[in-house]
Amino acid sequence: VHSLSVGVVAAEPPRGLVQEKMTENAVFSQNKVLTIDTMNPNVKNVEYAVRGPIVQRAVQIEKELREGVKKPFTEVIKANIGDAHAMGQQPITFFRQVLALCSYPELLKDNMFPEDAKSRARRILQACGGSSLGAYSASQGIDCVRQDVARYIERRDGGVPCDPDNVYLTSGASDGIVTMLKLLVCGEGASKTGVMISIPQYPLYSAALAELGAVQVNYYLNEEKCWSMDLSELERSLAEARKHCNPKVLCIINPGNPTGQVQSRQCIEDVIRFAAKEHLFLMADEVYQDNVYAEGCQFHSFKKVLFELGPQYSNTVELVSFHSTSKCYMGECGFRGGYMEVINMDPEVKAQLIKLVSVRLCPAVPGQALMDLVVNSPQPGEPSYTTFMKERTTTLSLLAEKAKLTEEILNTVPGITCNPVQGAMYSFPNISLPQKAIKEAKALGQAPDMFYCMKMLEETGICLVPGSGFGQKDGTYHFRMTILPPTDKLKLLLAKVKEFHQKFTRQYS
Amino acid sequence: VHSLSVGVVAAEPPRGLVQEKMTENAVFSQNKVLTIDTMNPNVKNVEYAVRGPIVQRAVQIEKELREGVKKPFTEVIKANIGDAHAMGQQPITFFRQVLALCSYPELLKDNMFPEDAKSRARRILQACGGSSLGAYSASQGIDCVRQDVARYIERRDGGVPCDPDNVYLTSGASDGIVTMLKLLVCGEGASKTGVMISIPQYPLYSAALAELGAVQVNYYLNEEKCWSMDLSELERSLAEARKHCNPKVLCIINPGNPTGQVQSRQCIEDVIRFAAKEHLFLMADEVYQDNVYAEGCQFHSFKKVLFELGPQYSNTVELVSFHSTSKCYMGECGFRGGYMEVINMDPEVKAQLIKLVSVRLCPAVPGQALMDLVVNSPQPGEPSYTTFMKERTTTLSLLAEKAKLTEEILNTVPGITCNPVQGAMYSFPNISLPQKAIKEAKALGQAPDMFYCMKMLEETGICLVPGSGFGQKDGTYHFRMTILPPTDKLKLLLAKVKEFHQKFTRQYS
Repeated sequence: VHSLSVGVVAAEPPRGLVQEKMTENAVFSQNKVLTIDTMNPNVKNVEYAVRGPIVQRAVQIEKELREGVKKPFTEVIKANIGDAHAMGQQPITFFRQVLALCSYPELLKDNMFPEDAKSRARRILQACGGSSLGAYSASQGIDCVRQDVARYIERRDGGVPCDPDNVYLTSGASDGIVTMLKLLVCGEGASKTGVMISIPQYPLYSAALAELGAVQVNYYLNEEKCWSMDLSELERSLAEARKHCNPKVLCIINPGNPTGQVQSRQCIEDVIRFAAKEHLFLMADEVYQDNVYAEGCQFHSFKKVLFELGPQYSNTVELVSFHSTSKCYMGECGFRGGYMEVINMDPEVKAQLIKLVSVRLCPAVPGQALMDLVVNSPQPGEPSYTTFMKERTTTLSLLAEKAKLTEEILNTVPGITCNPVQGAMYSFPNISLPQKAIKEAKALGQAPDMFYCMKMLEETGICLVPGSGFGQKDGTYHFRMTILPPTDKLKLLLAKVKEFHQKFTRQYS
Repeated sequence: VHSLSVGVVAAEPPRGLVQEKMTENAVFSQNKVLTIDTMNPNVKNVEYAVRGPIVQRAVQIEKELREGVKKPFTEVIKANIGDAHAMGQQPITFFRQVLALCSYPELLKDNMFPEDAKSRARRILQACGGSSLGAYSASQGIDCVRQDVARYIERRDGGVPCDPDNVYLTSGASDGIVTMLKLLVCGEGASKTGVMISIPQYPLYSAALAELGAVQVNYYLNEEKCWSMDLSELERSLAEARKHCNPKVLCIINPGNPTGQVQSRQCIEDVIRFAAKEHLFLMADEVYQDNVYAEGCQFHSFKKVLFELGPQYSNTVELVSFHSTSKCYMGECGFRGGYMEVINMDPEVKAQLIKLVSVRLCPAVPGQALMDLVVNSPQPGEPSYTTFMKERTTTLSLLAEKAKLTEEILNTVPGITCNPVQGAMYSFPNISLPQKAIKEAKALGQAPDMFYCMKMLEETGICLVPGSGFGQKDGTYHFRMTILPPTDKLKLLLAKVKEFHQKFTRQYS
């Protein structure tokens, strides 16, 4: 139903050695233990567009530019991944002060840091073995961090209780998602676990399912209704899947990635009732919970809505929610911080989950410290509060502004239709491609939107991800573009996209 | 042939709720989507003694002590895991200065840091997107860090060339090991991949193999010859395995964990020739490469020996070597830094490996920065050199001293026999258990050495890991004990072990 593009460019050996190496390879490759034919076929089936061939080509082009190769542009603009700091967003001062204090506690003696930063650092260090970020933590995460996460969730959800024992710190949200899928996926043939994911989806899901050998069950978001979820589509997808596998999990990304929609409270309610009725385990990817821009939109956590539906639901529906330090106003992707909260998980399974995370010892402790700061940020009256709030608000309103700008400019291009970017960090516009271009792409064995994006990269230096990497309805084409570049650069980028699209359309009409 | 102990204590709910929750569970647990019966059976088979039931009981006892429960001791001494900082080892000043500078670059303006720390920080930051540790790095790891790793390996191996394209940064060594096994393991029934691991082994291996559904192929280290590897035992093990699976991988840990031996050059040569002859992929876990204490022992990297054997081997044998920031003199476990170098990997498989690591985006960037500092430490003439060398040498000689001390004292105990701790961070002594104790343990369904260690924990507060968690010859019993506690505490610990062992022997004789 949907096609994902594969293919990774292997690193090139130094030029002089190429000939020699080629011969070597020819001689020995049949004799290797590990070859493309003997390796794990599940890994071969994995695809990950966000860092796929187009991004690798972008890296190559950057290198060529540095080496002086002439191009019709002077810079590659990467709008392929939600990497805020790489796009110039500044880290939150308070977070980095505390991390520096924790890394080198000698600084606690210094007067250059505010008292609240010092007290946060002391609190985190006291919870570390030997008062060092260099000790392993408990595998589930540092106790006091999990307690802070629990209190944060309670505040966010208007007092719905959260037990720190249900909180697991992770290496970013991806780690948590993969861990949960590992627990859930089993069986063979018709009893193989099916996992329902939205199309378009974030390709971590399809990649993890391929690796685990699970059945990917697609449900389509409704592009006409601003990428909302339709109950009838969930029903169709589930009924279809039940013919050939055992669907037990329903994954939702809200706010949406790559589609930028924010789910209504009603829709979340519908999804929970559906999961309860159909006996599905809910996985809610809520890493963009602070990234809501559109008027009238609001973030509703699945947990809160679950509890508002009453004990019939809140005591039974199994739910896990994921959060991360990488998105929202923090954008701290490199620290790989995150947490997940599990609700109504069977106690025996919880013990298995604790055992499973133990094998990897613990999530990186600096990331745990950062997660703590996010859920325990400066409070009114504390010395860092004003600066913190200013930095936070500035970042979020800039994002809101860029979300609007992106939608508006894209919609001025004939042949591009862009839904409102209600939240998250991406636009996912629909692009009309001429028949001639589609034909040419197919002749090259490429998805038409991959062909389009690759051409755009070569001609303009703009790096986007084709819709085929996320999945889309047959015969429709899209690209994902982050809204993260600084406003000026974003405007330039959008102008170039516009110009390219018009030129491309003319060329293939 | 060997038995591993399982079982994880589930977190207890608050007391008042127990009754109510029990009833709830009884009613709903049959209805849960995810139960012990429906979950992934491979995960159920995973065992991980280093953080197993004995460690969980130790955590509980610590809590009881804090709550004022009377015990025959006042403190739990954890000698179960190689966690140097938790045992009071101080971090290397230079490393932490650079990490603080990278976390909060405002500090670069300050005069309190030495110039070499500042220049390292600038170099790392320049290699990060947006000059921030908060940006994602390339999935394979930051380019300049991989270049530094390559130069480090070349220096270590007396000039044997290392291509940075063969270096992959990881989240600790565990992450690299699991990633490689994921690529290698496939097949069903008699064609299922077999992976040869030493017994005793570090339980990450058995855990990862269980999770991946691979066949664990045991080869036994020779306790009588100081835990050395016997070629004949490798041959026996392989021949046995070929009857029921497809053995393609041979894992070696050198210096040894949990056994503390350091392999001779001759032995490494034998292993490489064996792998070449038998068509096995070599995985060399070399995270303790700086931890060599015994006179006459020296660390030889598999890579160096491979190249010294000449092109017949160095052009063909597939090898991956793992290193980490967690051990040696650094002991920075919490940062989860590490790398692996792959040799003679098929280029197509390399592309698959790059794709696979892309799905997890990147290893935590602070850990990458730390890995860089380890392989690019202060050089003679730089302002931090003297302090760095002093700290490094002090730590390593203290460890050497404690290795000797541990062996000597343990060998004074009748019924305990301890091989020399030539390297790494552990002793793995053989303990004689009275028949009566063995019987009582079996009646309780416990491994006899688990019974022994659990009793020691309850009576003395000392937390060790039973040999059954690592595997051992049938009818032999061991425990693993780290040599990491500060010398005074280590002496106290060894005195307590001695006293306990004697008491235990009397009690069950």
